[in-house]
Amino acid sequence: MALIVHKYGGTSMGSTERIRNVAKRVAKWARAGHQMVVVPSAMSGETNRLLGLAKELAPQSHTDAYARELDMIASTGEQVSVGLLSIALQAEGMQAVSYAGWQVPIKTDSAYTKARIESIDDARVRADLAAGKVVIITGFQGIDALGNITTLGRGGSDTSAVAVAAAMKADECLIYTDVDGVYTTDPRIVPEARRLHTISFEEMLEMASLGSKVLQIRSVEFAGKYRVPLRVLSSFTPWDIAIEEEAKSGTLITFEEDEKMEQAVVSGIAFNRDEAKITVMGVPDKPGIAYQILGAVAEANIDVDVILQNVSHEGKTDFSFTVHRNDYARTVELLNTKVLPELGAEKVAGDTRICKVSIVGIGMRSHVGVAAAMFRALSEEGINIQMITTSEIKTSVVIDEKYMELAVRALHRAFDLDQQAS
Amino acid sequence: MALIVHKYGGTSMGSTERIRNVAKRVAKWARAGHQMVVVPSAMSGETNRLLGLAKELAPQSHTDAYARELDMIASTGEQVSVGLLSIALQAEGMQAVSYAGWQVPIKTDSAYTKARIESIDDARVRADLAAGKVVIITGFQGIDALGNITTLGRGGSDTSAVAVAAAMKADECLIYTDVDGVYTTDPRIVPEARRLHTISFEEMLEMASLGSKVLQIRSVEFAGKYRVPLRVLSSFTPWDIAIEEEAKSGTLITFEEDEKMEQAVVSGIAFNRDEAKITVMGVPDKPGIAYQILGAVAEANIDVDVILQNVSHEGKTDFSFTVHRNDYARTVELLNTKVLPELGAEKVAGDTRICKVSIVGIGMRSHVGVAAAMFRALSEEGINIQMITTSEIKTSVVIDEKYMELAVRALHRAFDLDQQAS
Repeated sequence: MALIVHKYGGTSMGSTERIRNVAKRVAKWARAGHQMVVVPSAMSGETNRLLGLAKELAPQSHTDAYARELDMIASTGEQVSVGLLSIALQAEGMQAVSYAGWQVPIKTDSAYTKARIESIDDARVRADLAAGKVVIITGFQGIDALGNITTLGRGGSDTSAVAVAAAMKADECLIYTDVDGVYTTDPRIVPEARRLHTISFEEMLEMASLGSKVLQIRSVEFAGKYRVPLRVLSSFTPWDIAIEEEAKSGTLITFEEDEKMEQAVVSGIAFNRDEAKITVMGVPDKPGIAYQILGAVAEANIDVDVILQNVSHEGKTDFSFTVHRNDYARTVELLNTKVLPELGAEKVAGDTRICKVSIVGIGMRSHVGVAAAMFRALSEEGINIQMITTSEIKTSVVIDEKYMELAVRALHRAFDLDQQAS
Repeated sequence: MALIVHKYGGTSMGSTERIRNVAKRVAKWARAGHQMVVVPSAMSGETNRLLGLAKELAPQSHTDAYARELDMIASTGEQVSVGLLSIALQAEGMQAVSYAGWQVPIKTDSAYTKARIESIDDARVRADLAAGKVVIITGFQGIDALGNITTLGRGGSDTSAVAVAAAMKADECLIYTDVDGVYTTDPRIVPEARRLHTISFEEMLEMASLGSKVLQIRSVEFAGKYRVPLRVLSSFTPWDIAIEEEAKSGTLITFEEDEKMEQAVVSGIAFNRDEAKITVMGVPDKPGIAYQILGAVAEANIDVDVILQNVSHEGKTDFSFTVHRNDYARTVELLNTKVLPELGAEKVAGDTRICKVSIVGIGMRSHVGVAAAMFRALSEEGINIQMITTSEIKTSVVIDEKYMELAVRALHRAFDLDQQAS
């Protein structure tokens, strides 16, 4: 008998028919003797509907008081889900009980709409499990020290599930979603992409932060910190497949670097076109320019990703960085009005038609020449590299957006991901 | 400066446009210097939508565990409403904060789906009011001693508003609804029906329990117990009408019997066609038959309204009573299978095509012959009376359903309600 946490996404909870299937699947696990905790998302579309209503009424300035009410409203989507799933389980003949985050309680800080979990009291849940009940807990939310409802931000239910699994020292946390695991890259772009049976926690973290949408990045960080065995698998397999088969499906995120994993130098190719590039041109080259530029950007709460400072030429240099496309216009305006005059730079140029492509692999640590192989593959396709950034287990390049698919396919082939057994 | 509680029904909260109007109206009151607490219902249709989802998944037996989940689900409708109204008030430049029942807290017993309020802690609300905030509290719900969410049953938001007003000793509780007050009878049946400027608490209680749908009966009981000044008024007047005019509109439910009220012998005519009549025929007339029949019915949790035992004839009698039409088939079956054999009665007859018409008036206490005047008016229209029941301030008759409108019109005229100034 194990303690298992299941997490179901909004699509899996999208109708009463699908909720009934979730209930049958959970009942199967419970009947096999496992203690079951389930964390469902809101029914698909519900969170958007609720936030849409709020937006129609929104005040001009986005105060904390406003954010507090957004959480009050948005948290109801998951509350409906847990109640419905509990009822569906009771209809299956199971004992079940649902809890909102505040009832557990899942305690968070007071950063409304993007709160962070601080602690989870599992006494009530343990008592229910001991009494033979399936316990269903709302994802995405908690309660702050003042007794206000908080939410964890979009996709926060993954984090809730992992946090509950960590607090309860669950044997495994299964994330049921609409894909059947983590792939070497997006199969819609590279049909030869293969599902990975295992991926290391660090690789998963890079994949998540680089744009692979399978898991919310904070949930991966949480799993890493507390070493929660995490599996991503499909909720669209028939609910009555053999439990042994289901328990091995999808992709397991592991913490041990076994030999097999060492063999693959690159595990996957990640990419995104969410970023835009901004270049401050003709900056007088003196100490502190990076701080002068990026300090102002950070103060405006804008996240910067790739950063590049060119070699100086005749006492002047160019300074480039990327931001999320949603922040592009705001950043350019900020630079033009506040930073440029002070800095004595010539002008600000920008490009929203870029993309970032990355190779990720724990094997890169012990293999030399991996980045070089990447650059050669791109060069053979005639793709110009605009920016480069590296970490211990990944190398990313910024290129023209129109080459994105071509680059991903070329790299997938160059690193033998098409054939390789994982 | 007064402490005022506003309650808005589902229709008044039915869209973001209407919520914006509610916010403007509340802001007007707050700007006039009043401390404002607002209790809104769920957006119209929302509670039905939520309970409809639950019903699609419902287990066969309706256990407490199931009822608990229904409350978990249904309570979210009001939670969305309070958040949206708080945002709309902030957009109007007001300070506002919303609370779910459990946050106040509004403590109830554990009778899920029909809980009763036990106590309200107003410390948090008072602190917010003192800080200049409008406080918005979910109707319809509370929290039990175990920390579970409970709901008060359909229409429970009226009760929540009155309970909050009672706990806070509010100066007045204004119930905004889709009618503009309490009428002498339903204007759809009697076009001459007039709005009452005042009605006594006891009359309102009779009107509510007799089928007038303006206020939930429990809210009237609560108002009576704690002497909460209660006003029913329309939420469809323009939000910017003068506050002095608005404060006098609708119908005030009063606790003092002033002279003016004494003048009207009958204040209103109530009616409903929700009941069915059941007659147990040929019952051996011996002590205890009422208990034998109605005891079994009560045990099955069926409410009985009008009761009539005929004069005995040759040692046998007939025993009639009315139940809600929804309980009719169940009651007849119960009598046939369990009560009849034991009792030695002849048979059970029933009639679902009846209605109950009542005259209500505090003046009936001190005026003789009011019931006789009622019977004469009905007799002049050729309407046969099947059952009669009286209390200190009302007389009800059960008649054939097809005469309902005719009887209401005849009585409205007979008691001078058409012309009388209220």
